[in-house]
Amino acid sequence: MKINCEFVERILCGFIREELGKSGFGRGILGLSGGLDSSVCAALAARALGPENVLGLILPYKDYVPQDIADAEDLTRRLGIRVRTINIAPMVDPYFAAEPTSDRKLLGNKMARERMSILYDQSARDKSLILGTSNKTELLVGYGTIHGDLACAVNPLGDLYKTQVRQMAVHLDIPAAIRSKAPTAGLWPGQTDEEEIGITYEELDAILFELVDRRRRVEETIGSGHDREKVERILRLIRGSEFKRRMPPIAKVSGRTIGQDFLYPYDWDK
Amino acid sequence: MKINCEFVERILCGFIREELGKSGFGRGILGLSGGLDSSVCAALAARALGPENVLGLILPYKDYVPQDIADAEDLTRRLGIRVRTINIAPMVDPYFAAEPTSDRKLLGNKMARERMSILYDQSARDKSLILGTSNKTELLVGYGTIHGDLACAVNPLGDLYKTQVRQMAVHLDIPAAIRSKAPTAGLWPGQTDEEEIGITYEELDAILFELVDRRRRVEETIGSGHDREKVERILRLIRGSEFKRRMPPIAKVSGRTIGQDFLYPYDWDK
Repeated sequence: MKINCEFVERILCGFIREELGKSGFGRGILGLSGGLDSSVCAALAARALGPENVLGLILPYKDYVPQDIADAEDLTRRLGIRVRTINIAPMVDPYFAAEPTSDRKLLGNKMARERMSILYDQSARDKSLILGTSNKTELLVGYGTIHGDLACAVNPLGDLYKTQVRQMAVHLDIPAAIRSKAPTAGLWPGQTDEEEIGITYEELDAILFELVDRRRRVEETIGSGHDREKVERILRLIRGSEFKRRMPPIAKVSGRTIGQDFLYPYDWDK
Repeated sequence: MKINCEFVERILCGFIREELGKSGFGRGILGLSGGLDSSVCAALAARALGPENVLGLILPYKDYVPQDIADAEDLTRRLGIRVRTINIAPMVDPYFAAEPTSDRKLLGNKMARERMSILYDQSARDKSLILGTSNKTELLVGYGTIHGDLACAVNPLGDLYKTQVRQMAVHLDIPAAIRSKAPTAGLWPGQTDEEEIGITYEELDAILFELVDRRRRVEETIGSGHDREKVERILRLIRGSEFKRRMPPIAKVSGRTIGQDFLYPYDWDK
């Protein structure tokens, strides 16, 4: 799980430049939560594209968590990237006024999708491409909102586990205030990922690494010292979130179906 | 391009039942625009699941196009499916009040994403799965909003060209008022797909069928009687919209990367 941060930085900066270039873009845009993943992604983008070519959007619900807003603002100053702040409450509140709920997940998902919608709108105005900030841990266990924070044009962090993103954060000089805070999806005040998933990121990543990267079977993973209940729960999370990692299935009725026999038009002749 | 509607109906109804069942759902939800595609999808879902297990959401911007709202309402009565109407203006207007634009595409995309967001919220409340209504023509030329109307859990219509959806509409007794109206994405009043794409659906589908289904090269397609400028334009549309038909690329830094070497967890042992 230990990574060579210098080397990973070079790969990820090259990836950002190359993927944007392929689509004819020189600029990137991303949402900044004041948390670890978006801060690391912003730092990489600033190095890859030049700070003037990166736009950080701070999209708080009112002044829900003032420290996160302050940390995000501070980061943009340190990196020298452009920044805009848009409060999402005026768009979110009218919906829940008409459709009340006490379900915090519904509130959090609607907010995540409002942020996505603003990010796409602002990316079109800025002629920039959206950089995703979901890490491998979140993607594997499905800890994110489909068509919300999981939505992006390219994802530089998606092959790094959370504990590896932490290593990158130290390497990239992300402020300690950001590095030391408890990871949270920001779905409600005081919420933390580890409490909600019911396992620390260290343990979660260690189990995922066995199952996914080392292709170990469940019994082997348990045999190497991991708790059976946790391993089985993680397996259920991976299986149950597959729909978030792929395109929706299309009913096949023709000889060439999108997502099945028709995939990439790259190799077509002119 | 002529399809056996009886046979296609059987396949699509089976697909809807099977895909929902896989995820443990017995109910479907979809947005109803008063147009052809969503009407055909609603009729199929009603046959596949029983009308009481289908929820149609009518999501107008104010009373922008009253005839569409009336047509959608009429369809739900004919099919006997459940229906709810939610006006999206209270959520969309505050954004453009703060971020004004005269760009109709920005307005249309934000509205499409608001509809998606409401659809996902209501699907969670109703414990139903979202049925997509994008057809093969739209998917191939990228005529739809990513994370907007293109977003769904499963898509029954994605392998039918627009002109084939029309055949299904006749077969399924969709009212003539819906079948005869000019197809529109509803991005602005008076907008029609064919005017915006600059080609009729008959011609567009015929060219797509040559290029995609029959795997003809560009020169062969032109040689068989199609206009060079149109064929080349369609090819550019297919190429330029590929990002809407696949998951965002992830930078590879590990031995097993989501979307590359890690695809489906189905075959894992317990």
